[in-house]
Amino acid sequence: MVIHPHPSRGRIVRREGVPFRSNSKGVKLDPSALLEVTGGLDVGVLAALHDESILDAAQFDKATVIALAQAAALLETTDFSMRKPLDGKVVVTAFFEASTRTRLSFESAVLRLDGKVLSVPDGRVTGVQKGESIQDIGEMLNTYGDAVVMRHPETSALDEIRRNLTAPLINAGNGSGQHPTQALLDWYALLKWRPRLADPVCPPDQRVHLGIIGTPGSMRAVNSFVQLALLFEGAVDRMTIISEMADPLGATLTERTKDSKIPIDVTNDIQKVLTDLDVIYMNSIAFLGDDYKTLDSRYKVDANSTLKPGSVIMHPLARRDELDTSLDSTAHNLYFAQAAGAVFIRQAILIAILGRSGAIADALQR
Amino acid sequence: MVIHPHPSRGRIVRREGVPFRSNSKGVKLDPSALLEVTGGLDVGVLAALHDESILDAAQFDKATVIALAQAAALLETTDFSMRKPLDGKVVVTAFFEASTRTRLSFESAVLRLDGKVLSVPDGRVTGVQKGESIQDIGEMLNTYGDAVVMRHPETSALDEIRRNLTAPLINAGNGSGQHPTQALLDWYALLKWRPRLADPVCPPDQRVHLGIIGTPGSMRAVNSFVQLALLFEGAVDRMTIISEMADPLGATLTERTKDSKIPIDVTNDIQKVLTDLDVIYMNSIAFLGDDYKTLDSRYKVDANSTLKPGSVIMHPLARRDELDTSLDSTAHNLYFAQAAGAVFIRQAILIAILGRSGAIADALQR
Amino acid sequence: MVIHPHPSRGRIVRREGVPFRSNSKGVKLDPSALLEVTGGLDVGVLAALHDESILDAAQFDKATVIALAQAAALLETTDFSMRKPLDGKVVVTAFFEASTRTRLSFESAVLRLDGKVLSVPDGRVTGVQKGESIQDIGEMLNTYGDAVVMRHPETSALDEIRRNLTAPLINAGNGSGQHPTQALLDWYALLKWRPRLADPVCPPDQRVHLGIIGTPGSMRAVNSFVQLALLFEGAVDRMTIISEMADPLGATLTERTKDSKIPIDVTNDIQKVLTDLDVIYMNSIAFLGDDYKTLDSRYKVDANSTLKPGSVIMHPLARRDELDTSLDSTAHNLYFAQAAGAVFIRQAILIAILGRSGAIADALQR
Repeated sequence: MVIHPHPSRGRIVRREGVPFRSNSKGVKLDPSALLEVTGGLDVGVLAALHDESILDAAQFDKATVIALAQAAALLETTDFSMRKPLDGKVVVTAFFEASTRTRLSFESAVLRLDGKVLSVPDGRVTGVQKGESIQDIGEMLNTYGDAVVMRHPETSALDEIRRNLTAPLINAGNGSGQHPTQALLDWYALLKWRPRLADPVCPPDQRVHLGIIGTPGSMRAVNSFVQLALLFEGAVDRMTIISEMADPLGATLTERTKDSKIPIDVTNDIQKVLTDLDVIYMNSIAFLGDDYKTLDSRYKVDANSTLKPGSVIMHPLARRDELDTSLDSTAHNLYFAQAAGAVFIRQAILIAILGRSGAIADALQR
Repeated sequence: MVIHPHPSRGRIVRREGVPFRSNSKGVKLDPSALLEVTGGLDVGVLAALHDESILDAAQFDKATVIALAQAAALLETTDFSMRKPLDGKVVVTAFFEASTRTRLSFESAVLRLDGKVLSVPDGRVTGVQKGESIQDIGEMLNTYGDAVVMRHPETSALDEIRRNLTAPLINAGNGSGQHPTQALLDWYALLKWRPRLADPVCPPDQRVHLGIIGTPGSMRAVNSFVQLALLFEGAVDRMTIISEMADPLGATLTERTKDSKIPIDVTNDIQKVLTDLDVIYMNSIAFLGDDYKTLDSRYKVDANSTLKPGSVIMHPLARRDELDTSLDSTAHNLYFAQAAGAVFIRQAILIAILGRSGAIADALQR
Repeated sequence: MVIHPHPSRGRIVRREGVPFRSNSKGVKLDPSALLEVTGGLDVGVLAALHDESILDAAQFDKATVIALAQAAALLETTDFSMRKPLDGKVVVTAFFEASTRTRLSFESAVLRLDGKVLSVPDGRVTGVQKGESIQDIGEMLNTYGDAVVMRHPETSALDEIRRNLTAPLINAGNGSGQHPTQALLDWYALLKWRPRLADPVCPPDQRVHLGIIGTPGSMRAVNSFVQLALLFEGAVDRMTIISEMADPLGATLTERTKDSKIPIDVTNDIQKVLTDLDVIYMNSIAFLGDDYKTLDSRYKVDANSTLKPGSVIMHPLARRDELDTSLDSTAHNLYFAQAAGAVFIRQAILIAILGRSGAIADALQR
């Protein structure tokens, strides 16, 4: 694997204070330790992503997840401002379903690396107004940008835009399908929290029992999260899905989990497993339908819940009532630190697919 | 004509692979040959556009159309990324009528040349909400940008904004008026397809019969296209307007075509002329009213139509049913290549009016 | 006070023609004389604003208002394009109440100094759609930007976002609260118009009688304007509030004006004071409720009104009927010049709070 050196010249400086700018409350994560595990960052793994699209969490192997997380850790602890790793690159953010949080995190990622952003904050209002098809929009974007980040309410939109789009595509959420970059940022947070989860043999006292509230089969962020969890056999001791549904995994995910060595069980009462969970992954009530109020006692946690000491709560945000603000100032709040890593993991992804991994290689050598 | 050298210094590199990034389907156009006709690009013609507004296709002479197309060809085949021709310039895109396609092509044009964009994606929602007049908006934009690109549903908005606006204005479509940059990109595609159309004396076998579906008198893109076609006497053999309307050209265009040596005729059945047309210019059904379904057999072409061998179909896009997707993979599809040139012709226009033609002159000397 | 030199290197050039780009009509203001008063710009005053939020006009002392106005004058008369004072900085413009004018002036300010913009043009449509709280949005923006500019229809939103936001915040209008940067741009215009107003002892013939149409107690722009006026004792001879309301100042402002040496009186008929006013500050009828039509003769001025010779009219714009367009071409029109200074005063604010006052210090030394 040849990694081209980055043409621009400039200082690379370790940032004073780690991390760069932290979350205001909850667990503070230091990215430094993550850079040391698995023998350090293998830039070749990043370089192999050049011109690749990011569509489905299932496309990643464990080495890629770890390399992207380590690249994010390097970006979070390094001042790249004089280096301009995405100089000359244009990234289109095409959001046919509004999401300020995801859109801005991608756009901040691009701008902080000196790339340019072409923004479509609300594609429903504009492009589709004239009845334009997603395929035609894909053809249009070929000459407008070097990569396209798309969110769309239809699961099928991903395949449709790729019929004509030749630029690499990043799926930022497609209907009830996938949200792979959310899963990468989730695992970036988990790996900063417990770097040894990345080890080929994770020490027993570092292994985790994951509790997942929701239905991975129909909720894209949870689905993608579970997909990546399956890569961490030996580190994930067990997964418990907390759901009312008879088949919360759905057909595709059931097929994929079939051969996993990680035991997966389902319960409809979080209180039964609460004291054993190391990680509780929540999601917005919005995607659970309108049943939430009646499920209250069985699904809700707050600062008074009997959580396992040292356990953490994750949430992709934005939240509604399901994630109680009383948890914000507790040591169980990993969700603010999780969100604070979003820009860096997306920078790592963009650098890799836009062929600028050389900037990462250069930074490693200082 | 003094052309100031561009102050910034940097590499200018011919791009590997021509063109830079092509359309996915249909005719692929190589811009190189266009650079050789008419003795090559006359940068003085571009430089004369400094501080000029682009309002109406009727403002151009043939030399300017050709010079802008040749500059676009140079931009399409050259890597300007280290050169930053629009460094320090701010372009405002003020869209009071939503158009993702046109807005993004201008914004991509600016960003790829290292200019900055101030974007008003949907002016109806914002500026006008407080009842602000277009004149007052023009006064406001004087200090915000170095040039303004405006689209507006009212034909009169162009005159209104110019009452106070002192910065150069680019008309990106005004009601049923003009869309001059669309016409320039249309002719950029035609000139790449048949460079000899630019010759003072076009060889007979290169001359074209243009078929135009629609009513140029009330459809701005078609109107502007016809205006530029009138400059190419001796290259355009004939124009046929295919329309239901008694007077599809309207008063202004009838006046302008009166002295042209190009014969213009009108028919209400495309099938009568289909096998003789070299170029078929279509437009969105949206502007044809709600009669389309009943006109189907007389106005519709698809992959099964008996098109002249070597003939091409153009369309400003976005399309509806009038442009059948069965044509996409045929050699008649010029519309994808046409769209793929949008960014480059708009770059040429912006470089010229913002006084950076020196960057083009420098690139020619390599 | 240590002022760090700005790391980037480049030309600083006095612009040819002063000011840089002027308003199309009305009074033309030359910023040069403002740079000479009070012994010149004290950069230490700017540097003290590093990492400060701009929330309320009451937070400023007179020296800060003058230093920011002088920095704006320097920016208006100097070409900083090669200097890039905001290089590497990301500013988020979060507008939960649409305002093209204010948003674009901040964004133009950032882009012209080579900073980056993350834009939320209409926060109601996006972030809040999922029911996200303002506090959670504040937490989110911590890692996205280096400063946040927020407008919000709720007065309380300012306190709410600051619960989690650690980046400096600029209040661009909060409900019926404050609009401090508008007041700074208003005073920038007044100080360019009469630089001696900044003097410790303002000559008698330079002092002004301010007439303010509206209710400062409930109109944020007027409120902030009055707050700054209170700093100019000895320069402001008198303030007259022209209002129908029994208590137009409201409780907070009445408290603050209590100890002022500037006499403040109230009238409900502008005609009674019109010939004595040096400055008439108007505001949009929208904020006056629906009574305007019946108040017409007592509140309205136009080109036929008997205005004092040399007097000027100010307005934050956008306007409705209350500001007659017949005034635009008169020598009483200061509002166009006022608006034309918006970008420069906002540049001064951003440079100061983002810790780049060193670029101003460098420019002063040329």
